[in-house]
Amino acid sequence: MDDKYLNNLRHSCAHLLAHAVKQLYPGALNAIGPAIENGFYQDFDMGKWSISEADFPKIEAKMREILPNWKKFSFNEISLPEAKKLFKDNKYKVEMATEFAKQGKKLQTNDPGDFLDLCKMGHVENPSKELGHFRLISIAGAYWRGNEKNKMLTRIYGTVWPTQPELDTYLKMLEEAKKRDHRKLGKDLDLFVFSDLVGKGLPLLTPKGTTLKRTLERFIVDEEIKRGYLHVSTPPIAKVDLYRTSGHYPYYKDTMYPPMKVDEEELILRPMTCPHHFALFKSRPRSYHEMPVRFAEISPQFRYEKSGELTGLIRVRTFLLSDAHIITPKNQADEEIEKVLDLISYVNKAFGLKSGTDYRFRLSLGDRKDSKKYYKDDKMWDYAENVLREVLNHQDVPFYEAKNEAAFYGPKIDVQMKNVNGKEDTAFTVQYDFVMPKRFNLRFINNKGQEEEPVVIHRASIGAFERTMAFLIEHYAGALPFWLSPVQVIILPISDKFKDYSVKVQDELVNNGIRVDRNDESKGSGAKIRESTLQKIPYLVIIGEKEAGSGQIAVRTREGKDLGPIKINEFITKLKSQIENFS
Amino acid sequence: MDDKYLNNLRHSCAHLLAHAVKQLYPGALNAIGPAIENGFYQDFDMGKWSISEADFPKIEAKMREILPNWKKFSFNEISLPEAKKLFKDNKYKVEMATEFAKQGKKLQTNDPGDFLDLCKMGHVENPSKELGHFRLISIAGAYWRGNEKNKMLTRIYGTVWPTQPELDTYLKMLEEAKKRDHRKLGKDLDLFVFSDLVGKGLPLLTPKGTTLKRTLERFIVDEEIKRGYLHVSTPPIAKVDLYRTSGHYPYYKDTMYPPMKVDEEELILRPMTCPHHFALFKSRPRSYHEMPVRFAEISPQFRYEKSGELTGLIRVRTFLLSDAHIITPKNQADEEIEKVLDLISYVNKAFGLKSGTDYRFRLSLGDRKDSKKYYKDDKMWDYAENVLREVLNHQDVPFYEAKNEAAFYGPKIDVQMKNVNGKEDTAFTVQYDFVMPKRFNLRFINNKGQEEEPVVIHRASIGAFERTMAFLIEHYAGALPFWLSPVQVIILPISDKFKDYSVKVQDELVNNGIRVDRNDESKGSGAKIRESTLQKIPYLVIIGEKEAGSGQIAVRTREGKDLGPIKINEFITKLKSQIENFS
Repeated sequence: MDDKYLNNLRHSCAHLLAHAVKQLYPGALNAIGPAIENGFYQDFDMGKWSISEADFPKIEAKMREILPNWKKFSFNEISLPEAKKLFKDNKYKVEMATEFAKQGKKLQTNDPGDFLDLCKMGHVENPSKELGHFRLISIAGAYWRGNEKNKMLTRIYGTVWPTQPELDTYLKMLEEAKKRDHRKLGKDLDLFVFSDLVGKGLPLLTPKGTTLKRTLERFIVDEEIKRGYLHVSTPPIAKVDLYRTSGHYPYYKDTMYPPMKVDEEELILRPMTCPHHFALFKSRPRSYHEMPVRFAEISPQFRYEKSGELTGLIRVRTFLLSDAHIITPKNQADEEIEKVLDLISYVNKAFGLKSGTDYRFRLSLGDRKDSKKYYKDDKMWDYAENVLREVLNHQDVPFYEAKNEAAFYGPKIDVQMKNVNGKEDTAFTVQYDFVMPKRFNLRFINNKGQEEEPVVIHRASIGAFERTMAFLIEHYAGALPFWLSPVQVIILPISDKFKDYSVKVQDELVNNGIRVDRNDESKGSGAKIRESTLQKIPYLVIIGEKEAGSGQIAVRTREGKDLGPIKINEFITKLKSQIENFS
Repeated sequence: MDDKYLNNLRHSCAHLLAHAVKQLYPGALNAIGPAIENGFYQDFDMGKWSISEADFPKIEAKMREILPNWKKFSFNEISLPEAKKLFKDNKYKVEMATEFAKQGKKLQTNDPGDFLDLCKMGHVENPSKELGHFRLISIAGAYWRGNEKNKMLTRIYGTVWPTQPELDTYLKMLEEAKKRDHRKLGKDLDLFVFSDLVGKGLPLLTPKGTTLKRTLERFIVDEEIKRGYLHVSTPPIAKVDLYRTSGHYPYYKDTMYPPMKVDEEELILRPMTCPHHFALFKSRPRSYHEMPVRFAEISPQFRYEKSGELTGLIRVRTFLLSDAHIITPKNQADEEIEKVLDLISYVNKAFGLKSGTDYRFRLSLGDRKDSKKYYKDDKMWDYAENVLREVLNHQDVPFYEAKNEAAFYGPKIDVQMKNVNGKEDTAFTVQYDFVMPKRFNLRFINNKGQEEEPVVIHRASIGAFERTMAFLIEHYAGALPFWLSPVQVIILPISDKFKDYSVKVQDELVNNGIRVDRNDESKGSGAKIRESTLQKIPYLVIIGEKEAGSGQIAVRTREGKDLGPIKINEFITKLKSQIENFS
């Protein structure tokens, strides 16, 4: 099965959906309806109607009812005046036809089952035979042409596959992904919330979510300090001029917040940390003795994302990046990049992720012909891309090369993480930058007493905290590894009589650095065990008559395994070793 | 000596300074010249002239030269037209005269030593005899009338005292304060820098400054968690509406940054954390089981401060507050406030500060007659002020009461810290708030199953990190307590031969959680010891022939005390106990 056939199948099904909706809801107008990964969508101006996912069975039934009459897509090329006449009731079609005509594109219509539509083409041969294995998936709002100044339309997402088993497999995968959706789990496990009053895309981490964040933060800060990074704290706002100097301002302007006038200065929320670290580097002369300088920061950053693109913790309007900039003599760059890859491997191992299956490396290259997107210096690009390639070869890790994916200031290595949908996202990056040192006039005194220009390696060790948390929640379906679990142990006394002993056990665990909750509610212990298991707390300590007398505890895992009675000290030793081994 | 006499003395001396400057720099115009704490200042429009502190001896000499002729201040009441005529060359005087006249104030002139000036009065009887003990202190820029839209004037600060010994004492104190100035020490000890490119009032903490910050942060977070606080992470930006709901927006608007339009929302940098915590509290129903809810956060906040008011780390445009909001049933408020005071005492003890000498408590009250500044509910004010008063009485700590110092939503307890200038600043506060629960409609279900309105206690445990760091640096003249020192131990091998052993010693200390530097430079050990002592590193470990062989180390303190040879293990035990005891 080639991608083209799947695209045609899905695009065809979008037409079928349009036909069904227009029959069921007279006056509804269909706008665009393209194929997308794993399916399609179709936008509608629903006019006086309002629909929800509850209407899907009705719409699907109508699609099935119509389908036998969809014998074939016939094509007619038409003129713009004809198009304007044929689609005079649909302003969206007229707008598109006018624009296509202006661009010199052909205008074509098709009318399977007498459903006349304007379309860019790409359909199946026998719709009535091929379109049977579809399902409507979800509904969302979407601005006409993606512009928030236009009307909000109703977007229906659907999927369609060549065979029923393929459809079933996909729906099952979807079901599984839904269960793992960090937005759902974030709520169920009380990790984060959003608030209309605070604003869109601005998550509020609860005490549990904050514990996860803090555990990640201390882990990476301590590890980076061990590896020679110098953690610094720079302000989350700065003068717009700083980003003009770096060249970010014109380039990233669309994803930056508007500037704020203050006194005689124009301040702006920072979209990245690099220029701040350069300012710190330049605050005094630097000698080769202290090079490379590895400035790291757990850095709050701000990117303006359109409200339609906000997604849980994955696409947010403010995030915390484990950022660093290694300012190094050119001849040590390869060594430094190897060290960064070592750190990333270490981090991924701590997260329980495997190279090859859970993630892989991508070498993202520039394009010598695109001097608008990339800084023009062919020799430097060749050199830098080669440095990265050789490091990857030397590390002996699987990687692939991708053209036209570099930063504007140099090539990079991306760590591509596979998420629960099977899709790959860039989790962390390592970038080679030969442009910023020039823009900021970065210099150090080398061992010959001369001024030398360093290169900069930009890197994120555990990426954006929010996104990494979302990834881990989905990867583990909420059952985070013990060392990362916000509540690691819960103590469940089976009655009030055992409260004293429970408190004693809790104190002993807490004094050994374990995060412990206690549930004293006077419910049956069955209910309490069920609740704690649903909360994915790694260990449940049940305390009753037998335990209170013995100096032992009964431990059960969230998977339902009974560890039997165990001495508190032994349990503590086991837990400490789990923390040490990131398990 | 009463304050009125000192005020008259200082105000008189400002006139003398104006006279001298106008004689030395023809065309210079004097604007205002009031008495201030410990001295006075006088503003000048210097016209074509430009002066610096290097000119002070010349100006002081001129003041001394003029002084014998300053027999007395004579007074004349004049009309506005007369004033306009007399001061036609000085637009500042004309502007002030016009304004005074408009307000119905008398216009008066005086002319000691034939120096005619317009003035609000308040002078000494015999200037030539009384004004002798003065000194010019510093120079700064200051906008006319404090408004950045006006011209920047030159402000000269000076001091004057009734007797020479008093002047000498004050100058000595000033000298000492200068040595302890955190801005100077921050640079000398490489703790923080400012950058023109980043912007005014936006400090960049170096690796050492960040280590201090991180040590404080982990200390307070861990301690607060032990005491039942729930640390959370909420976004540093939010919708303006959030602060309209809280009532902060109209009230604090002048110190907030301008709003940013984003999509259909208006976002703004947060000036405080409370409404964020309320949004989190309201994200789900709350039961008495979980009350009081103590939300804490190491919270980045943003206040717009005028550039003239920025002072090192003390007055900045963005800061990190150890903030918390305790949402408690009304009948537990007193108990919760006691716990907060306990925490503050604990923190101050860890900082080596003594109640009574280094700090004291202030009970800051409202004003029943000022319903513009304070929320109107006399009964609640009486009740809340009494709760705070009783808590202070019960704690048996010295405190005093101050009228008209409350927050708009309730009375508070301020922890007043004495700084190196002998001045008191508010370091931490504990506020009783009965207004926000109403504004945000905060509720919990009490043990009778009914909805109940809680009260909120706002508190800062270690205040703003930047300000607390500035205070500690000045209090300890840079020689921070061991547990807070960014570099706790430095290893100084007396030659390259001992590098291996030095590295071994360093690793052993680092593995025991000590922050250690090593100076391998091939300088004489005398120079290295001097440098490390100037850097105020608590312990210097000198490694030579004798030590390398013996498994021992030679330790010296920053005070120059020789601890003699000591076994590494013993040294580590000593250091660990110092950390545990916050010494």
